[in-house]
Amino acid sequence: MIPTLSWTPEGVRFIDQTRLPLEESYVVATTYEQVADVIVTMVVRGAPAIGVSAAYGVALGAQHSESESAERFAPEFDKICARLAGTRPTAVNLFWAIDRMKKLFADLRSKGASMAEVKERILAEAHAMYDEDIAACKTMGAFGGALLPDEGGVLTHCNAGALATCGYGTALGVIRSAVEQGKQIHVYADETRPFLQGARLTAWELTADGIPTTVICDNMAASLMRAGKIKAVVVGADRIAANGDFANKIGTYNVAILAKEHGIPFYCAAPWSTIDMETSTGDAIPIEERNQVEVTHHGGKQLTPHGVGICNPAFDVTPAKYVSAIITERGVLRAPYAESLREMEMAAQ
Amino acid sequence: MIPTLSWTPEGVRFIDQTRLPLEESYVVATTYEQVADVIVTMVVRGAPAIGVSAAYGVALGAQHSESESAERFAPEFDKICARLAGTRPTAVNLFWAIDRMKKLFADLRSKGASMAEVKERILAEAHAMYDEDIAACKTMGAFGGALLPDEGGVLTHCNAGALATCGYGTALGVIRSAVEQGKQIHVYADETRPFLQGARLTAWELTADGIPTTVICDNMAASLMRAGKIKAVVVGADRIAANGDFANKIGTYNVAILAKEHGIPFYCAAPWSTIDMETSTGDAIPIEERNQVEVTHHGGKQLTPHGVGICNPAFDVTPAKYVSAIITERGVLRAPYAESLREMEMAAQ
Repeated sequence: MIPTLSWTPEGVRFIDQTRLPLEESYVVATTYEQVADVIVTMVVRGAPAIGVSAAYGVALGAQHSESESAERFAPEFDKICARLAGTRPTAVNLFWAIDRMKKLFADLRSKGASMAEVKERILAEAHAMYDEDIAACKTMGAFGGALLPDEGGVLTHCNAGALATCGYGTALGVIRSAVEQGKQIHVYADETRPFLQGARLTAWELTADGIPTTVICDNMAASLMRAGKIKAVVVGADRIAANGDFANKIGTYNVAILAKEHGIPFYCAAPWSTIDMETSTGDAIPIEERNQVEVTHHGGKQLTPHGVGICNPAFDVTPAKYVSAIITERGVLRAPYAESLREMEMAAQ
Repeated sequence: MIPTLSWTPEGVRFIDQTRLPLEESYVVATTYEQVADVIVTMVVRGAPAIGVSAAYGVALGAQHSESESAERFAPEFDKICARLAGTRPTAVNLFWAIDRMKKLFADLRSKGASMAEVKERILAEAHAMYDEDIAACKTMGAFGGALLPDEGGVLTHCNAGALATCGYGTALGVIRSAVEQGKQIHVYADETRPFLQGARLTAWELTADGIPTTVICDNMAASLMRAGKIKAVVVGADRIAANGDFANKIGTYNVAILAKEHGIPFYCAAPWSTIDMETSTGDAIPIEERNQVEVTHHGGKQLTPHGVGICNPAFDVTPAKYVSAIITERGVLRAPYAESLREMEMAAQ
């Protein structure tokens, strides 16, 4: 079991994903501000993992509060939530997790709960979200694993693995499940510039599991597809709009187009917490622009000349028309997604 | 004028392209073996530059020979040519340059030429190829510059610039010419993993010329195209087959598909020496697989975990159907390329 994040008596313990794969070290965030920093600096990343991290951040803030009641804690609670919500803009799981805590807290406050009860219930909610996340990954893995071919290459982009969740993974959960089902899968992992989540994280967790994996540069996918080496593509998501458009790591849209051009199925795997029915299309999803240094430097060494412009959007939007299926823990959705998403949302209520 | 390579009394002087953009240093190859090493290690790279480098390598080998006649020099000449031809397999300009030297030498030998004459004529031929290369770039620049939009973003991949030729460039020559024609071009340069020719070399030579340039990761092109920021794509070529399929830096095929999907014209600019009428289609072009370390390490630092597989093809093949036009010094060719290439080849004979 890969220890992406866990609750400890000292605080929230994270594997430091900025130091993988060569160094396996850990960071313990002892305050909610430190949890926020850990999200901003990408010590932890991946939409589902960010959501649960924020939930534990709220729990940590509550634990350390010296307020005497839910009522007195309310302004502090709002401040904690605002700080955590301000870390990263694109992955909706972050806001989903904070909203869930807000609903719980509003209920506790309306009932005049004691601070001891607030602390206990908020921590229990974070633990529940942690457990639900792993369960969702396993379920979507089973659904998605059935879609993958019995043998052959499967391409993935970025890291939608155990390290992007509380364990098992979304896209990599689908691959793990296929392997557990006896399928002979060879994973091609896009290295995923500029942060190299594929080269560093996907490669690390899949080789640790003994799943055959080859790292490629992001620009090599088309020639592998043309050579018949890729039978399917599976990626994660940071936010899925109500029409099925979805935001994911920069480069996902490139891969979707290449898959379509070569007639290769392109799957998106994500828990239901990634679906944002309030956002009608992908054009409305905010895209985080990150520091240029991620592109211009590596290992402290500058790659580009002075004076040149740099783009560094962390995500792009893949229109729904490129998506063969959306794999969730509630089932596999097919186009038209505006309808299938709405129906599955209503069925669950 | 960017000093890609030049003949000096000491030997062939190269700007060290592995150290750009932060360090402008030079290497002088004093023997043909050193010229071969300089090509293998990519101190010099780019199909036209490699061709002229090999020509100077043959000239250097001749200069140093102690043979007394063309006849005596013949076995040595063959060895020199074989060593230079064995450096890199994909760019046909290398073989074109060596073949041109072989034809010249066969003529000199059949005429019983003295070694002094051999030395003089071979060096003069290399100088002619150098001058022709710059002239070809300028001419194709004029043809191609007219095809670019009056204003807007133009995407290029790898470095098909002054540094890939004896000066001015193929794809970047087209851009330079468009700018000289008064067009308001903003260049988007794919960083071009793993060797980063775009981030390092294209960015360096265009910013030195004052042409506005933004470096992007290879996986960002599709979202820029969707946002309407790219009006045209122009790339170079390492070998163009008789049907118009062409090999170029890995990732070119990706870009071609993305351009097609967004309805953006995709141009290939190359001198006629890049056209290989002996190779019927792109499938027959040999693709160099380079050392995995280019992908796994950067600046001496390892990026990937131990035990993971790595792909590192240096080139891919873009089928002719994606190419809006092939820009050469003889004119602009349009599909069907099997016909237009044959006709232009015959017209020149």
